[in-house]
Amino acid sequence: MQDDGFFSKDAYAKLTGIEVVATGPGTAKVKMAVEPKHRNSHGTVHGGAIFTLADAAFALASNSRGIPAAAINSSITYMKAARDGVLYAEAEEFAVNPKLATYSVTVTNDEGEKIALFQGMVYRKSPKHA
Amino acid sequence: MQDDGFFSKDAYAKLTGIEVVATGPGTAKVKMAVEPKHRNSHGTVHGGAIFTLADAAFALASNSRGIPAAAINSSITYMKAARDGVLYAEAEEFAVNPKLATYSVTVTNDEGEKIALFQGMVYRKSPKHA
Amino acid sequence: MQDDGFFSKDAYAKLTGIEVVATGPGTAKVKMAVEPKHRNSHGTVHGGAIFTLADAAFALASNSRGIPAAAINSSITYMKAARDGVLYAEAEEFAVNPKLATYSVTVTNDEGEKIALFQGMVYRKSPKHA
Amino acid sequence: MQDDGFFSKDAYAKLTGIEVVATGPGTAKVKMAVEPKHRNSHGTVHGGAIFTLADAAFALASNSRGIPAAAINSSITYMKAARDGVLYAEAEEFAVNPKLATYSVTVTNDEGEKIALFQGMVYRKSPKHA
Repeated sequence: MQDDGFFSKDAYAKLTGIEVVATGPGTAKVKMAVEPKHRNSHGTVHGGAIFTLADAAFALASNSRGIPAAAINSSITYMKAARDGVLYAEAEEFAVNPKLATYSVTVTNDEGEKIALFQGMVYRKSPKHA
Repeated sequence: MQDDGFFSKDAYAKLTGIEVVATGPGTAKVKMAVEPKHRNSHGTVHGGAIFTLADAAFALASNSRGIPAAAINSSITYMKAARDGVLYAEAEEFAVNPKLATYSVTVTNDEGEKIALFQGMVYRKSPKHA
Repeated sequence: MQDDGFFSKDAYAKLTGIEVVATGPGTAKVKMAVEPKHRNSHGTVHGGAIFTLADAAFALASNSRGIPAAAINSSITYMKAARDGVLYAEAEEFAVNPKLATYSVTVTNDEGEKIALFQGMVYRKSPKHA
Repeated sequence: MQDDGFFSKDAYAKLTGIEVVATGPGTAKVKMAVEPKHRNSHGTVHGGAIFTLADAAFALASNSRGIPAAAINSSITYMKAARDGVLYAEAEEFAVNPKLATYSVTVTNDEGEKIALFQGMVYRKSPKHA
């Protein structure tokens, strides 16, 4: 399966403990069980870990069409600190044009509470004969 | 030193291999030597690792005033893929009001090239007697 | 109706030619018929006009709960240039906590095409007796 | 002068009352005298008007190189409400690569206080023989 091959090369996602839950055309869902290694100086889950979780869903969704996509811009809004349990990130495609595409990713905890909202944009090099 | 104590509790920054270069009131500089663990599926440094580097500088700068600051929003723009060497992130305070403060962080490589521009906002709970 | 009173004081939205379509708790829909005054130097609808349209939906949605809300941060991604016809912006509440709330706004044209994706955050001063 | 020609076609900037102060390669400064038409429902300057001011500086700076540049993404953080006087927006080029470029814009009032921080990204179609 294409997405598994793609994701299996993602060393930083692996370091962070991220696993793929599901992928589809323009979508992806990933998860991360919170561990002590994810904490920041305040004792909650680090913004970088939450961002990386969302970014992994974004990368899977945006590379699901067979054309390599490079992230050019992302923003994240944190709505609730995460402390433990399992976090999920689910990416949806908002819009696609020939060169650019935009995704939104929702991060939730295992009680279904909204942790963060992420928005990302990619640039795609056109394939030579397309 | 306050910032060293603060940073020493940051488990995810440690996992990512981030080190403090310098801190001051409202500012901070951190670095990260690129290793295979930082790579994404395209073989370049993962957006999550670059974000985490910038976020570490942002956390140090925004917590440098003695009042705990929680990140509420960040955005990052990637200008050049990073592949190896050492990456640096330097945070500056843009503006502060009683509850909110904004920082911008520049990520560069060891040739001085601009890798990413990060902007972050924090919310500070007022101290009880201030 | 509360929202009509709120919106009727919005001089810049009026200058821009924005009209309310519908409002509800945490939601709002507004529209703008494209006129020559909305154009930028490239002849398409100005990013500022598209932003203002999205911002009007965001302001209505975030002030729909009776507690004044001040915008602190917004981002917008443009997916398609708009040239004429009617543009719509529809705001949804993503998450609310005691002080902060986040909204996403979708801008579409009258053919249902996605023009822009906007995300905004507000800060609410707590009411005195709550 | 190229920039004057460019700006003179910007109908929405004109409607908003924006004037050019200075332009240069990759930079621009614009201003806006606050009028009743700029107010929002809270009686302060509308976020859309502040955004449009910043966006005008961004458009001038990013189109200063002779290659048309289309905005693809912008974010704005508001640090202080603006009520009257003159507002200024000053754009700087952060980084440029063959297709994409990033600008940051600072909005200040006539007492030098920081009102908002804006960040914008453009996409440039390569000229055919360059």
